[in-house]
Formats: sequence, C-alpha cells, structure tokens
Amino acid sequence: MTPEQRLAELGIALPAAPPAVAAYVPWVQTGNLVMTSGQLPWRDGAMAYAGKLGVDLRDDEGYQAARLCAINAIAQLKAAAGELSRIRRIVRVEGYVHCGPGYRGHPQVLNGASDLFNDVFGERGRHTRLALGIHEMPLDAAIELSVWAEVGDGANDQG
Amino acid sequence: MTPEQRLAELGIALPAAPPAVAAYVPWVQTGNLVMTSGQLPWRDGAMAYAGKLGVDLRDDEGYQAARLCAINAIAQLKAAAGELSRIRRIVRVEGYVHCGPGYRGHPQVLNGASDLFNDVFGERGRHTRLALGIHEMPLDAAIELSVWAEVGDGANDQG
Amino acid sequence: MTPEQRLAELGIALPAAPPAVAAYVPWVQTGNLVMTSGQLPWRDGAMAYAGKLGVDLRDDEGYQAARLCAINAIAQLKAAAGELSRIRRIVRVEGYVHCGPGYRGHPQVLNGASDLFNDVFGERGRHTRLALGIHEMPLDAAIELSVWAEVGDGANDQG
Repeated sequence: MTPEQRLAELGIALPAAPPAVAAYVPWVQTGNLVMTSGQLPWRDGAMAYAGKLGVDLRDDEGYQAARLCAINAIAQLKAAAGELSRIRRIVRVEGYVHCGPGYRGHPQVLNGASDLFNDVFGERGRHTRLALGIHEMPLDAAIELSVWAEVGDGANDQG
Repeated sequence: MTPEQRLAELGIALPAAPPAVAAYVPWVQTGNLVMTSGQLPWRDGAMAYAGKLGVDLRDDEGYQAARLCAINAIAQLKAAAGELSRIRRIVRVEGYVHCGPGYRGHPQVLNGASDLFNDVFGERGRHTRLALGIHEMPLDAAIELSVWAEVGDGANDQG
Repeated sequence: MTPEQRLAELGIALPAAPPAVAAYVPWVQTGNLVMTSGQLPWRDGAMAYAGKLGVDLRDDEGYQAARLCAINAIAQLKAAAGELSRIRRIVRVEGYVHCGPGYRGHPQVLNGASDLFNDVFGERGRHTRLALGIHEMPLDAAIELSVWAEVGDGANDQG
C-alpha cells in the first residue's frame, strides 16, 4: 500500500501544500534530504488552532493541531518528492508547542504528529523527535512543526 | 554578479566571522552541508541589539537585528566556502526572536534576514525558515539565527 | 586512544541508550549523518535534574545536567555507530535550557555538554552549537540536547 492509499484509507485528503507566509519557501531538497519550513495548523487557509496549550486549548485539541501540522508537512513532502513512496524515511520531527506556565503535556500532544507519520509511512515513518515549549508563537499558532525526510531516487527504492 | 559583488553594491562590508562565545566552533561542514552556530547581532565585537521585541525594541529594530545576524552568518559561510559563489543554496534559516508577552511580529522581523539572503544570493538564497519566540536569550540578544547551506565543489558549480 | 577508552579514563560508564518517551525513536541515520532525538538528563531511568535554571537549580547543577544529557547522547551515538571511533565529527549540538525570567547563563551551563564532547572526541568533538532558553520543558527537564554527528564507513576512517 502506498502512503497515498493509506492517507485515503484514513479519510485524509491532502491539502494544497500551504505557501510560506513571508520571504521564504515551504521546502528545500539538498542531496537526499528534504526539509520543510515551520508548518502551522492551517486548514483551508485559516489558522485552525490558535492559542496556548494549558491556557486556551485542551490536550486533545493540541493533538489535533499537531496532526494537522503533520498533514500539511506531508503535503509539502509530496510537493517535493512527487510521490510519497519516494520518501525513504521521516528522519526528524521538530515539535514546538505554544503553551502557558507549568505546561507538561508536550509529548502527548506531539504524538498527534508522530502517530500520523507512523500510521502513513509504517517503518519508514519512524523518526527522531524534538519537543519544546514556546511562550509566544508566530500568528498565535498552537503548534509549529518542522520535518526532515530522506528521499530516494525511485518509487521502488528500498532505502 | 557574485554574492560578494552584490554585498558591495548593498554597501555591506562583511565583518571578520564572529568567533564562538564558548567551547564550540562557529561553523562545520559535513558532506556538502555547512551549518553555522547560533549567530547573534554582534557588530564590532559588541551586542548591537539587546532586549526583547515588543518590550525593549521596535519591529524595525528587530528587522535590523535579524539582518545583522544574517550578515554575520554570511561571514561564516564565506569562511567555510572561501568564495560565496560556491554556495549552491541557502537551505534553512532558523530564526529565534527574543520577545515579550503577546508578541506576534516574528515573521516581519525575521524578514530582515530572509530579505538579505534573497537579495545577495538570488534564486540560490531561497530558503526554508523556522520562526520561534524565545523568552530568555543568551547574552540578552534580540535575535539568534542558525543557517544551513549547501556548498558546491567549484566556483561555477550550478547545483 | 578511542573515545570509549577516554570515557573510561573519565570514569564515565555509558548507560543503555535511553529509549524515547513516546511514539518515536532515539536516533536515525541518513547518509553519513546521525541525529538524536531530544536527550533529557535521565540517570538510571529517573529525571536527575528537574526544574528551571535561575529558579530551582544553580548553574553548576545545570552544567551537570547538560553533561548528563551529553552522556546519554553519546550512548545513542554508540548505539547508532557501533564503535565511537566511527564518529568522524560531532557536527551540531542544540542546547535548550529550561530557565526562569532574566536568566542569562545558557553558554556556561551548556559548556557541560560541549566540554565533554571536546574531551571525549578531541578534534572530532569540535561542534557548532545553538543555545536557547525554554520557558516550559517536557517532563520539567532542566536541559534538552539534540546532537548531530557525521559517521564514517570504518573504524579507522579519518574523515
């Protein structure tokens, strides 16, 4: 099953890869590495999850925000790779959680992204992760996610 | 026009590449990737922009701080690559903004760096970007910037 | 002297590489690059340094926390590379310091990690570094460290 088929099975329609919000680009490939710019929880051009975890948003909302950032990141990876089966490995997920004083739920909330990568890419979705709290996020976004992936030369490349 | 010529046209004299402030080095090359340590807004050995955006500094000062960090980063890239025309691509700019409660101007302020990379390197300056707020920065620096670039084998390398 | 011999000389017994705390893996290799997930100051399965620098912890405790994160990162690198002599270069150390209002000791505290990398790996330990303050850290960890290294093809690889 290709990652695209798995996304369809999960009922996820990839959006158009969200454009950058300023003077930069949403992804770059160097050698076999693709990296994305910081992905925010955009849906249909609107910020779907704004505010701080532990203040304005519950953890289940944070989980959905992280999942939405991951969907947007996958859209960027598809724009970069053409076909998601060319992704040999999700190598790194950087998860930044907009949160208030004393917040400790970063790992659970970021699993909204990690679970999706594992679900869509299987063994190739197993990634390293960074989890950090941020006191003030651009555009008041609940989550920002940056993703690095290794891309292969062909659709049947086995890494 | 080379990046050095473009810098001259912009009236920018690259400083000596700022040294690291502790037990590390300012840049490393691995394969074709060069990465810099966190670059701060140093000018002539002094911190030119200290304090927090939204509290101590206006956005136009933050823009200049980000631009100055980018100038220092370009000095590091030149130290690494010898000639800036060997830079095939600015691949990633990580922008950390020292800011107070409720600050949302990260994208505009970090354009001070992005605009310069685009201006000096043209198509090769088009980068991915990460924008995050930081509540307490080392040395009270207004901005910290980390830059990744792809470097080629020769001056006329076309990537 | 191998890095393992140098560790023994320093009286450091590498722990079992700490497992990830959620739906991800502790390290990934892509090409010649190994990157770790965020390493926390775990010792014998317990968080050895919790709280914020400048509030709950002194700088000398922060230095030890950063050193402990570095030991855990070296355990991950050994898990990835088999033998530490296959590490050609520590290329990047990202140091995140959990800290309270007005804290400025990030560089000194993170030297707890940098000094160890330099001590264990010698010239190959000379790394770039990022130093940032974090207001709320996962699991209340005092320090989080992410490490990138270049790994060679053989034990006597000279980079």
